[in-house]
Amino acid sequence: MSVFTPVSESQLADWLKTYSVGALLALEPVAAGIENTNYFVATSQGRYVLTLFERLPAAELPFYLELMAHLARHGIPCPAPIADLADRYLSELNGKPAALVTRLTGKSIEHPDLPHCAALGALLARMHLAGRSFAGYLENPRGPKWWRLAAREVRPLLDAERQRLLDEELRFQSLYRFPDLPRGPVHADLFRDNALFEGDRISGVIDFYFAGVDCLLYDVAVCANDWCVVDPASEPRLDAGKTVALLEAYHALRPFTALERGAWPVLLRAAALRFWLSRLYDYHLPRPGQLVRVHDPEHFRTILVARAALQLPPWTG
Amino acid sequence: MSVFTPVSESQLADWLKTYSVGALLALEPVAAGIENTNYFVATSQGRYVLTLFERLPAAELPFYLELMAHLARHGIPCPAPIADLADRYLSELNGKPAALVTRLTGKSIEHPDLPHCAALGALLARMHLAGRSFAGYLENPRGPKWWRLAAREVRPLLDAERQRLLDEELRFQSLYRFPDLPRGPVHADLFRDNALFEGDRISGVIDFYFAGVDCLLYDVAVCANDWCVVDPASEPRLDAGKTVALLEAYHALRPFTALERGAWPVLLRAAALRFWLSRLYDYHLPRPGQLVRVHDPEHFRTILVARAALQLPPWTG
Repeated sequence: MSVFTPVSESQLADWLKTYSVGALLALEPVAAGIENTNYFVATSQGRYVLTLFERLPAAELPFYLELMAHLARHGIPCPAPIADLADRYLSELNGKPAALVTRLTGKSIEHPDLPHCAALGALLARMHLAGRSFAGYLENPRGPKWWRLAAREVRPLLDAERQRLLDEELRFQSLYRFPDLPRGPVHADLFRDNALFEGDRISGVIDFYFAGVDCLLYDVAVCANDWCVVDPASEPRLDAGKTVALLEAYHALRPFTALERGAWPVLLRAAALRFWLSRLYDYHLPRPGQLVRVHDPEHFRTILVARAALQLPPWTG
Repeated sequence: MSVFTPVSESQLADWLKTYSVGALLALEPVAAGIENTNYFVATSQGRYVLTLFERLPAAELPFYLELMAHLARHGIPCPAPIADLADRYLSELNGKPAALVTRLTGKSIEHPDLPHCAALGALLARMHLAGRSFAGYLENPRGPKWWRLAAREVRPLLDAERQRLLDEELRFQSLYRFPDLPRGPVHADLFRDNALFEGDRISGVIDFYFAGVDCLLYDVAVCANDWCVVDPASEPRLDAGKTVALLEAYHALRPFTALERGAWPVLLRAAALRFWLSRLYDYHLPRPGQLVRVHDPEHFRTILVARAALQLPPWTG
């Protein structure tokens, strides 16, 4: 349960008077999420998600909200922030920065099949193309600089084998910088639980609160590491069929450059490292209210090891 | 049938590549509409309306599209323009200015009852409140200046009784100017066929191509003249219950000022005059492609006569 800041119906009803969304009908806390307080909100006019930002730096919030607004008005099925009567996406409720966004329909898929991976690849490409005209800038908050800070904190808590893996991967990644890869706003956390489906169609991409500007291919790698494994529970290797489905659907809309093809194995490892590190961090250095949802860091260690053993990017195989 | 500029599936499929809305699934011409060519468009990602602007002055189009975008991001259920990859709402297709907007669900209601009039009043007030922060400006294109131009053209084609009614009403209206009434963007054409319902809830307000900046109360008067009559087919007098339902629901969200209460009977007549004039114009001076949908001008003459006979605004009765 992740309601850090409770909101009562009467508080919300008052707050909604500063919006044009109609009268409050229902308010329901959302259990998921470890960074924010979320409520489902139904009004006489529609369905929304209310988010109270608990930890995200205030300076970063406009980037996330403006990016979602930008993508939504390009037709990307992402939460569209609702502007209040003062024409602001970001307001305040119970002492916290707060925003109201549209609630999307559909359900996430635990075991994606080829059509789902293809739908994801196409949507990711469209999102990246639509993001090109977005003027906002925020460096990926979980990029290489953050890796080094997080590694410094978690390393002393690891056993020797894991320390060695971490050191080697940081050294490996430091050999590669890709200044010429296409860059732009990336979701950076588009795991299965952040995509909603109706049938084979993606009806929603949610949770943009790890977004930032980075290599577009990094976003594809994050997705592949979660969507295209043989079995998320037991087999971290990439499934060739799912990976090809993801990459080809993406490539058909935004063709990969030669540089991107070459960088693919490195970015798969970078994406695995980033989530291994954040899960190590959350596991060994938990914050209040977060314990319930901590993921096993080992999952991404096995993914990192599997990607480091990968010889060829699947699309050239 | 109002397709002035045909669009083929292959032309549209090509054009949609400059958007992020997915691949074309279906294209269906829309019969309604006398000013634009409209198609329903279904893609792998959603449902849209494609509009090719046939007659509207190019300089006015950004006002309409930006207003819809503004209201949509405030949660008003109106068509949301989709930006293309160059981040523009207005593009070009087959030599015409063209735009893609979201397609809303629901159906218009021919015989609105009290809950529908109340829902309309509330939505209109929310729309006016949300419009206050809109920076765009376009004087109502069918305001007093246009009345005089249109009257000059249609007057010679009327019989003596109608000439007298027109002269008297123009003179009456010229006695009233309301510089201190609250002003802002108004829909100005929110007839029953431009509101979509799902049950008693308004799921869409469409066709903003007569919008402009004018007295907010004028928008209410346009609605009352269409929604709140005893019987649109036979009895043009205002139904007290429906009128009170509309006004009270509006008033609860944006309270009317004392000046507005005083101006109400005059604006009911102004709203009737505007549509009597445009229907006279379309009837006597038809343009190609428009003949099929011409409305009987007499309907608004009887409404004007009934409003001129109205002694008291219903809410003070």
